[in-house]
Amino acid sequence: MVDAIHFPDVELYRGWGAPMRTESTLRGLELTQGAIPEGLEGALYKVGADRQYPSGRLDDIFIDGEGMIHMFRFKNGQVDYLSRWVHTKRYQLQQQARRALFGRYRNRYTNDPSVAGVHMGTGNTTAMFHAGRLYALKEDDLPHEMDCDTLATIGRSDLGGQVRAETFTAHPKVDPVTNELLAFAYQAKGDASRDIVYYLFDKDGKMREEVWFQMPYAACVHDFAITDEWIVFPFFPLITDLDVLKTGGPYYQWHPDQQVHVALVPRRGGSAKDIRWFKGPSASAGHMMNAFREGTKVHLDVCYYEGNCFPFFPTPQGVVTEAVPPLLKRLTFDLAGNSDGFEKRQLLDIPCEMPRTDDRYQGRPYRHGYVIAGRAPDGSSGTGHVDHVTGKFEMYRPGPGDSVQEGQFVPRSPDAPEGDGWLLVPVCRVHEMRTDLVILDAQNVAAGPVATLKLPVRVRATFHGSWVSEHALRTGQYEATATLGA
Amino acid sequence: MVDAIHFPDVELYRGWGAPMRTESTLRGLELTQGAIPEGLEGALYKVGADRQYPSGRLDDIFIDGEGMIHMFRFKNGQVDYLSRWVHTKRYQLQQQARRALFGRYRNRYTNDPSVAGVHMGTGNTTAMFHAGRLYALKEDDLPHEMDCDTLATIGRSDLGGQVRAETFTAHPKVDPVTNELLAFAYQAKGDASRDIVYYLFDKDGKMREEVWFQMPYAACVHDFAITDEWIVFPFFPLITDLDVLKTGGPYYQWHPDQQVHVALVPRRGGSAKDIRWFKGPSASAGHMMNAFREGTKVHLDVCYYEGNCFPFFPTPQGVVTEAVPPLLKRLTFDLAGNSDGFEKRQLLDIPCEMPRTDDRYQGRPYRHGYVIAGRAPDGSSGTGHVDHVTGKFEMYRPGPGDSVQEGQFVPRSPDAPEGDGWLLVPVCRVHEMRTDLVILDAQNVAAGPVATLKLPVRVRATFHGSWVSEHALRTGQYEATATLGA
Repeated sequence: MVDAIHFPDVELYRGWGAPMRTESTLRGLELTQGAIPEGLEGALYKVGADRQYPSGRLDDIFIDGEGMIHMFRFKNGQVDYLSRWVHTKRYQLQQQARRALFGRYRNRYTNDPSVAGVHMGTGNTTAMFHAGRLYALKEDDLPHEMDCDTLATIGRSDLGGQVRAETFTAHPKVDPVTNELLAFAYQAKGDASRDIVYYLFDKDGKMREEVWFQMPYAACVHDFAITDEWIVFPFFPLITDLDVLKTGGPYYQWHPDQQVHVALVPRRGGSAKDIRWFKGPSASAGHMMNAFREGTKVHLDVCYYEGNCFPFFPTPQGVVTEAVPPLLKRLTFDLAGNSDGFEKRQLLDIPCEMPRTDDRYQGRPYRHGYVIAGRAPDGSSGTGHVDHVTGKFEMYRPGPGDSVQEGQFVPRSPDAPEGDGWLLVPVCRVHEMRTDLVILDAQNVAAGPVATLKLPVRVRATFHGSWVSEHALRTGQYEATATLGA
Repeated sequence: MVDAIHFPDVELYRGWGAPMRTESTLRGLELTQGAIPEGLEGALYKVGADRQYPSGRLDDIFIDGEGMIHMFRFKNGQVDYLSRWVHTKRYQLQQQARRALFGRYRNRYTNDPSVAGVHMGTGNTTAMFHAGRLYALKEDDLPHEMDCDTLATIGRSDLGGQVRAETFTAHPKVDPVTNELLAFAYQAKGDASRDIVYYLFDKDGKMREEVWFQMPYAACVHDFAITDEWIVFPFFPLITDLDVLKTGGPYYQWHPDQQVHVALVPRRGGSAKDIRWFKGPSASAGHMMNAFREGTKVHLDVCYYEGNCFPFFPTPQGVVTEAVPPLLKRLTFDLAGNSDGFEKRQLLDIPCEMPRTDDRYQGRPYRHGYVIAGRAPDGSSGTGHVDHVTGKFEMYRPGPGDSVQEGQFVPRSPDAPEGDGWLLVPVCRVHEMRTDLVILDAQNVAAGPVATLKLPVRVRATFHGSWVSEHALRTGQYEATATLGA
């Protein structure tokens, strides 16, 4: 006899957050409004966290839990929906035991003795497609390769023996213009290690750059940003302390006394000695919208917290810091200047998170950004579009109480001008406990959906994801564009 | 490009009836209340109708639509849930075409020309387990064999070449005491044929009885009943007219001018000439609770409609008859008497449907019956227990607005007294658009669930089903009981 499955009555698992835990297959979503744009063919892969079994802990956090990968497959005018657990070793062992065997977020000292030495990775953060292969990613683990059609887990991957780090970011950048993959691994030699490594892979998946260096502290490096010449790594003082882990403590601690450090690493041909370092007052961030170079200056647009972005990680003294709003700011690093400081300018006057762009413009001067914004006390939110040229900000808000998950831009065609295309947005119909996938005109989000696809099930969480065009699914490569070259 | 999927805005597809269309896999349901009784091990298989694609018709009826088979697998103190489409040829062809190819309920003259000659069977009515094999059944088609563990469709089956009829009932009786299968096929030589055949298969699945005879008209014979010596076949005047089908009309027409006919066929060793016939005024019924013999009398307990049980089937003149309530009545046929009439006695003063019993007592004198009752204008309903000895009727009603699907009795042990065990009842949490599986004490349903298992998804429809004990899953045979012999 195994234990019955009870989830604790905590905020995390109430309402929309109720564990979903279901692998779903639905061929042909109902179209309840509008029309699916012609030519919109390919797959939207998204990944989020769910809970396979209750951990028995009251300190579970929303970024933890087993990965569930979701596919919205657009083909011939219909859309199929699939969701599958990422069948990590962790998932498999828990499935066999029929209970949770892994404990507190990324703290292996809280795991069941029976799984000593087994990785805690969940594959719960995003989906990456590169060189014909699909992966589910969690930043503390190597990628898990997934079958593009069935979402079956193929297995943990070191990308053909090329990745020597123990980890791999969940915010890689696949450049749909050059088909390069830019990525990194932090705490790359294990928990609390200060090692970080920058990687560039060519369109066929062959590693072309590997730059190892040291972080100022064992930071949380959830995301990074790219430009044509420089790769931007911000280090925020959410710091891992191995001694704290050994006593069952939180994976990160917030250090308001420590500075932000930013490393600019050459995109090509550099090594640790070529890195340019900058510093600023304590702050934090999870997600970058974009970066680009303007002469000798590098601009980083980031949803910036002037404080701790993760209040559930307290200070070493156990102080739980107050929540601060994420504000879209442009940090500017002057490579020709004689200062190791940087300038900050706020780009938008309302809080926003989960920033995305037309990914063809990642690392390039750009105009259009997309965010989740307008979060209200009832949990509702909307999809915002910021135009950096006009300064205009527009929003799509679904029904009362509804919220949105991160949107995904899809260009109308490989050659379409920047921002000319659609945003695919999972909408949480909170009162109905089910999801709609809406398709917005990325140039006119305020007009509301051009199409609404109804799911009879709830897509509990999708943190991040990728669009893979039909061409890329078929050939492994995104289409060449005329307007942008490598 | 294929057509977008739009369901019409008709009552059938509103609210709880919204198409679900999802194959779900959920390992380990949450237990939100109570405890799963020890020793409750095996599988509850249930089958219902969903809609793969909109038919484009406004006259869809709830008993139509592709079959979805559901499994609640009780093992070692946890319960897994699986749902899978029954992958009939019809399902497969529609999946390839990505649209409905089959038209009005059982009317092949309304099908797309591309599927001429392909059977319309949906496998949408019940799950049968016999001699180690699981089947999904629809009464106008042969059984579809399903994998007991994965619910994958193995294929259409004539039970090893034994079934020569074109159809097979969706209300077979598998006797868990003798492990015999009693079954029949009506309109057994094709649509509107008056042929019917009674079958008895032994515990290994070998056909031992096959009695062909003629119905008084091409009736709807949704269910039948068994006793130790006689098999009871009631014929109600819902009649199929091939000429009507050819013009695209309804599969059945209601004939209030025609009588009910009842055939009593010897359980063993009989032939058409041994059949005893009885007659009564026009009426109808879908479901039998039980039958049993008392000397020279045979009693049939049935949810009886003094009129048309399916108002969506009009008269030949096109008159849509008023709905009449199903009332549990005992029809008594006196084999020693000199009348071809029968007596009728009402057993319960409130309407009820979907009658079930402790299946070990099918065909035997019995005490306990279970029904869906108390249907209110808001659609809510409850699970009733009728005690034929005390006349007492008790009910379990879930929350306001909630409704129940057919319950399944499971004995506490193979030797437990009649009615000593549990009722497994899917509860429609209508306001939450999801399902709970509740476990009731079959002797005290009014006390409410002894355990509640939460599903985050909606089990749209399960018409009927079967419990297969762990022993039967393992050996193909239900456990022998000491209290009841063959």
